[in-house]
Amino acid sequence: MAERITPRAKDFSEWYQDVVLQARLADYSPVKGCMVIRPNGYAIWEAIQRELDRRFKDTGHQNAYFPLFIPESFLKKEAEHVEGFAPQCAVVTYAGAKDLEEKLVVRPTSETIINAMFSKWVQSYRDLPLLINQWANVVRWEMRTRLFLRTTEFLWQEGHTCHESAEEAEQEALKMLGVYKEFSESVLAMPVVTGIKTSSEKFAGAERTYCIEVMLQDRKALQAGTSHNLGQNFAKAFETKFQDRQGNWQYVHQTSWGVSTRLVGGLVMAHSDDKGLVLPPRVAATHVAIVPITKGVPEDAKLFEVADRLADELKKTACALAPEGIRSKVDRDTQHSAGWKFHEYEIVGIPIRVELGHRDLEKLQVTLVRRDTGVKKFVPLAEAAAAIAADLELMQTELLQRARDLRKKNSYLVDDFAAFKAKIEEGGFLHSHWCERAECEAAIKEETKATIRCIPIEESDRLMPANEPGRCVKCGSQSRGRVIFARSY
Amino acid sequence: MAERITPRAKDFSEWYQDVVLQARLADYSPVKGCMVIRPNGYAIWEAIQRELDRRFKDTGHQNAYFPLFIPESFLKKEAEHVEGFAPQCAVVTYAGAKDLEEKLVVRPTSETIINAMFSKWVQSYRDLPLLINQWANVVRWEMRTRLFLRTTEFLWQEGHTCHESAEEAEQEALKMLGVYKEFSESVLAMPVVTGIKTSSEKFAGAERTYCIEVMLQDRKALQAGTSHNLGQNFAKAFETKFQDRQGNWQYVHQTSWGVSTRLVGGLVMAHSDDKGLVLPPRVAATHVAIVPITKGVPEDAKLFEVADRLADELKKTACALAPEGIRSKVDRDTQHSAGWKFHEYEIVGIPIRVELGHRDLEKLQVTLVRRDTGVKKFVPLAEAAAAIAADLELMQTELLQRARDLRKKNSYLVDDFAAFKAKIEEGGFLHSHWCERAECEAAIKEETKATIRCIPIEESDRLMPANEPGRCVKCGSQSRGRVIFARSY
Repeated sequence: MAERITPRAKDFSEWYQDVVLQARLADYSPVKGCMVIRPNGYAIWEAIQRELDRRFKDTGHQNAYFPLFIPESFLKKEAEHVEGFAPQCAVVTYAGAKDLEEKLVVRPTSETIINAMFSKWVQSYRDLPLLINQWANVVRWEMRTRLFLRTTEFLWQEGHTCHESAEEAEQEALKMLGVYKEFSESVLAMPVVTGIKTSSEKFAGAERTYCIEVMLQDRKALQAGTSHNLGQNFAKAFETKFQDRQGNWQYVHQTSWGVSTRLVGGLVMAHSDDKGLVLPPRVAATHVAIVPITKGVPEDAKLFEVADRLADELKKTACALAPEGIRSKVDRDTQHSAGWKFHEYEIVGIPIRVELGHRDLEKLQVTLVRRDTGVKKFVPLAEAAAAIAADLELMQTELLQRARDLRKKNSYLVDDFAAFKAKIEEGGFLHSHWCERAECEAAIKEETKATIRCIPIEESDRLMPANEPGRCVKCGSQSRGRVIFARSY
Repeated sequence: MAERITPRAKDFSEWYQDVVLQARLADYSPVKGCMVIRPNGYAIWEAIQRELDRRFKDTGHQNAYFPLFIPESFLKKEAEHVEGFAPQCAVVTYAGAKDLEEKLVVRPTSETIINAMFSKWVQSYRDLPLLINQWANVVRWEMRTRLFLRTTEFLWQEGHTCHESAEEAEQEALKMLGVYKEFSESVLAMPVVTGIKTSSEKFAGAERTYCIEVMLQDRKALQAGTSHNLGQNFAKAFETKFQDRQGNWQYVHQTSWGVSTRLVGGLVMAHSDDKGLVLPPRVAATHVAIVPITKGVPEDAKLFEVADRLADELKKTACALAPEGIRSKVDRDTQHSAGWKFHEYEIVGIPIRVELGHRDLEKLQVTLVRRDTGVKKFVPLAEAAAAIAADLELMQTELLQRARDLRKKNSYLVDDFAAFKAKIEEGGFLHSHWCERAECEAAIKEETKATIRCIPIEESDRLMPANEPGRCVKCGSQSRGRVIFARSY
C-alpha cells in the first residue's frame, strides 16, 4: 500500500512533496538540486510542449537549437545581464582532458549566445522579424531547491525575436504574454494575472518584463511565465544591426519569453488534493481508467470484453478537449484489489475512473467517478462514451472556475500597513498602493516576505480602477495606482 | 544570389558543407565544436523525433528526463565505461561562485546516472520490464568536428531498459535495432545494413553492440544508430537488483540504444545533389512550393487565387506519407525573379515545385517539378493535388531505391589484401573474411583507414552465405565468415 499523503491543512509543503513523489512525477537525484522527471511527470511536460509549440508555430515562430555552452566573455558583454546571472552559473573549466583557454558557462538563458548568431544572420529589414524559439535545458545554481518549482537544471522554452521597431518588439512581448495567458487558462486551468514586473524583479538585461502570476491553493503566488521587451540592450552588446528601409544601419529591437517545467509544479499546487494528483484533462496522458471488478470467475472475460469495447469507442470519440480521441486504459492487473486500484488512480490523477462489475454488466451500466469531485454516477453502457466526453469537458471548465473563485476570495484591497502585515500572514493577493520607490518595495519584502508580483495591466485583474489615486501602503507618499503583493515561490 | 555549391565530384566534403550552410540547416557557432541548428535543420530533427517517438511509444516505452550532470565518481563505477568516455568529457568544476566538492561531468551518455535511479525504482520482477527513453543533449569533446556528423554537443534520444532475463534483454536490443532499420528505410529512405560491432568498436560497457550502417554517396559508411545489450555490467556497478519470481535477488539485464542529430547529416549525404538539399518527402516540413509567375499586372491576383485554392486542396489531401494533409506554401514574394526562387527552393530541398504562370492558367494546368529528378510535367489543374500526392509517394520510394542501387553497385567480395587496398580507395563496402583477431582489425585500419563496420546479421545484407568458410583477408588464418569493411565518418 502506498504511504499516506500529508494533508494540505497540516503542511502544504510536505503535501506537495508527497504528491509529486507518490504520483511518480519526479524524484530526487544524486546530483545536488537536480531532479529526475519520471514518466508520469514527463507526460505532462510533453502535453505542455505540444500545446505551446502549436501556438508558437501558429504565431509564426520557428524552432532552432543553440549551444549549451556560452563563452564566459559573451555573458559579460551585457553588464546588467552578467551581474544578474554570474552568481548562479555552473562553469566548465576543463574538457577533453585539458584546461580550457576560455571557460564555458552552462547556459542559464541564451540571449548572449543567440545574439552572437543573430548578429551574423540579420543584415537587412528583409531579414526581420526574426522569430525563433528553442526547447532546451538550462542550469541556474540554486541554494534552496524544490521539485519542479526551483531546480538547478530545468527544461524550458525560450523565444528570441528581432524586430525593426520598438513598437513591434513591444507588440511581440505582449502577444506572447497573451499566448501564455490563453494557454495557462484553457489548457492548465490556471487563471493568471498579467502584469509588469518592477525594476527590481525584472529580467537582468531587459527594458521591461511582463509576467503571468497564478495563485496556488496555499494562496501564495507563482510566476508561471515571463515575456521581456529587451529593447536594444543585447543588440548593442552584440552588434545585431540591420539596414532599414532608408538604408541606415540600426540596432534591432528584441524580445525573449519563456516558461519552464515549473509549470508542472504549479499545476500540482493549483489543483491537487489530499488524495493525490488532480490533472486538467487536457494535459492528462490517460483520460480514463477502466477497471473491471473481477471475481476470479470465467464470466470475468465478459467484463474485459466490454471494457475493451468501451476503450475502442472512447478512442473514436473526438471532442474539443481530445481531438484525436479519448485516451483510456483497461486495467488488466489481477494482483491488486479494486480498492487498491481506485486509490492508485486517485494518486496519479486519472481524470475519470470507470468501474465495471458483474452487477453493472447485468444492468448494462457503468459507474463513472470524477477525480476532482469524487462524485459517482451510473450511466447506461450505451451512453458511457458520450457521458465521459461531457464530464471531461466539465471537469476542465470547473477546475478553472474553482481556481478563479479561490483567487477572487483571497484578493484584498489593503491600504494600511498594519492590516497589510496581518493579512499577508493569511496569504492571498494584496492590492495596495505603492510609491514606485525600490526602497519601499525592499522594506516591505524585508518585513513581510511579500514581493510585488506585478503591476496588473488588465482592468479585469484589478479590484479598483487603474487611475484610482492613493498613498503608498508603506510610506504614505503619493501613488499612481495599486500593485499586487504576495508571498511567492 | 546565393553562392555556388561545390560539385560533389570536385570535393565531397566541401559540397556537404556548402549544402548544409546554404540550405540553412546549421551554422558554425562561436563555441568550439558546437553548432547551431537553424530552423530548416531543426524541422528535419522534429520530423525524426515525431516518427521515432511514436514508434518508441508503440513498443511500450515511456519518456523521462535525467540530470545533465553526472558526479565524476558515478562514471568511474563501470571500468570499461569510464575508460571509453573520460577522455571526451567536459567537466564543471565550479558553480554558484564556489568550487565544487565533487566535479560534475556533462553527460556524454546516461547509463550511470540512470542506473543510480533504476537501482532505487526496481525492487521486484513486477517492476520489469522497465522501458525508458530520454530526448536530450549530450556532450563529447571531439577534436575534429563536422556539422551534424560529429559535434561536441549533439541532440539525441537514448533508450534505457531493464529486464528479468538475458534473453529478454537480447530481444529488446534486437527489437529496437529493427525499429531503427524500419524507420531509417521507410522515413529517411536510407537503406541500412544491420550488424554486430566487433569488440574494439562496441560501446564502452556493453556486452554486445548492434548497429545500422548506411552507405553515403561518396561510398563511405555512416553508423546511423546503435543498440546495446549491456548485460549486467551497469546493474552490478550500481546494484540494480530485483527479487525474481522465486524470491531471489538478481541483477537486471539491460539495454540502451540511441540515434542522434547525425542522422540529419546522413540524410544530406545520402540524397542531396549539386543543386542543394534533397529531402525524402516524409521529413520535409514543406512538401510543395507553389510559385505564381507574376508579371506585375492586375491579372496576377487570379494566379494567387488559384495558388491558394490549390494549397487548401493539398491540405485536405491526406496520403500515407502525409496523413494530416500535404503541406505547401504559396510564394508571395515580389522582390525576386522566378528563376531566383526556383534556385532557392532547389537549395533548401522542397520536394515538389509548382509553377503557375498566366499561360498555365489559360490552359487550366500547372507545371510540376520534382526536386530529385528535375523532371517537369504539365498536369491539369483539377488533377494537380492527386498528381502531387502520387509524386511525393513515388519520390520517397525512388530515393530509397536509388540508395539501395548505390549500395549494391558498390559492395564487393574481396579475398585478397592487395585487391582490398586498391578497392578501398574507390570506396564502398568490402565483404571480406576476417580471423576475429583485434590485431588484424587494427593492422587493416592502420594500413587502409578502413574499419569493420559490422558483422552483418541478415542474410539479405550478405553477398555470400553466412557459413561460407574462408581465410582472413589480412593474415590468411581461418575465418568463420565475412564482415563488412569500409571507410567511415
